Amino acid sequence: MRFGVLGTGMVGKAIASRLVEVGHEVCMGSRTADNEEATSWASGAGDSAAHGTFADAAAFGEVLFNCTGGMVSVAACEAAGEDNIGDKVLIDVSNPLDFSHGMPPSLSVANTDSVGEQLQRRFPSARVVKSLNTMNCSVMVNPSALPGHHNVFVSGDDADAKKAVRGILGQFGWPEAAVIDLGDIKSARGAEALVLFWVFLRGALGDNQFNLGVVPPPALPSSA
Amino acid sequence: MRFGVLGTGMVGKAIASRLVEVGHEVCMGSRTADNEEATSWASGAGDSAAHGTFADAAAFGEVLFNCTGGMVSVAACEAAGEDNIGDKVLIDVSNPLDFSHGMPPSLSVANTDSVGEQLQRRFPSARVVKSLNTMNCSVMVNPSALPGHHNVFVSGDDADAKKAVRGILGQFGWPEAAVIDLGDIKSARGAEALVLFWVFLRGALGDNQFNLGVVPPPALPSSA
Repeated sequence: MRFGVLGTGMVGKAIASRLVEVGHEVCMGSRTADNEEATSWASGAGDSAAHGTFADAAAFGEVLFNCTGGMVSVAACEAAGEDNIGDKVLIDVSNPLDFSHGMPPSLSVANTDSVGEQLQRRFPSARVVKSLNTMNCSVMVNPSALPGHHNVFVSGDDADAKKAVRGILGQFGWPEAAVIDLGDIKSARGAEALVLFWVFLRGALGDNQFNLGVVPPPALPSSA
Repeated sequence: MRFGVLGTGMVGKAIASRLVEVGHEVCMGSRTADNEEATSWASGAGDSAAHGTFADAAAFGEVLFNCTGGMVSVAACEAAGEDNIGDKVLIDVSNPLDFSHGMPPSLSVANTDSVGEQLQRRFPSARVVKSLNTMNCSVMVNPSALPGHHNVFVSGDDADAKKAVRGILGQFGWPEAAVIDLGDIKSARGAEALVLFWVFLRGALGDNQFNLGVVPPPALPSSA
């Protein structure tokens, strides 16, 4: 399948590399067509890897990942273009972390709204699914590196889109039972709030190689 | 030891009952001396249980629990009286959940502040420790009812106060290794943010008998 990955940071590279690794074609998009990070990534990632503008990536992908910073995600997706996004599944991995006031960061949108909801409102035809934003990017794409039971969450209004995301998560190595459906896109504000907690927990643990598991582990949903 | 428990809701009753159960004396405080919930609780909880105003409870306790709703916690503690609170350990279990705009609730203070910090600022001599607010009250006082590894968090500026809280958590049944120190009182905003996530997770699971565990489980701190 063809994927467009918006964003050239650690998260974008981790997601894009893992997608190529499991057999997909990926175009990594950035603000400019000659972005160094994207050029470097694409040149090292094999024949299935390309790069271009946000619009190039969005046009290329059948499914899109938003891996831009949450504070600029709406602008990045606007640059990608409403027509290119269309009614595609848009997996929103972003967090609106604002470090401009020092540590600890705050969220630029929070509590009564979320980036996931902003994207869904701005691109009503897109099928936005918030997922994977609650952990470090190396855990996102290699969950079995952590021992035992831990979870990833999906939020979105479209059941088929969430099912598609479950499939991709499975390719990343997430067991079906580890994927918890938090609800509609409004629940993205819960997933994004979790990141404020994550920041302090990361500080307390002195490490980002961790995740959270729900205890007791929820049973596999009958719809799965 | 003598405890003052501010609040007569489910959380206050669960905490107060468990404190009596493990051998402590408890005065449950509320806005009025003749609060029905507190009167009923005290009459059924044995000789170690009493009730009174917020001020009575705060004067009685050597250690205090704030189990009032987070939106009214500062006012409740003001009613308890700065002199009665003094430099006591004040364990803040509250969440500033605002249901006035319907579901899902929002937080009345969030992101760049927290009830824990509000209390610490208003009562600078008190030794505020945020804890236990990230789960249902039955899990707070009976953690072993859930199978396997799951965590409780402490946030506060005073190391001795956090050590005292660890002791109380141990009496409630929390293994020493399950208690994670999130940092100073500022980290209460992380613990309170987690509750926004908890609300959606509770909806997804259809149950409140769950908790979160950090994977991999952190090693016991050398200071413990």
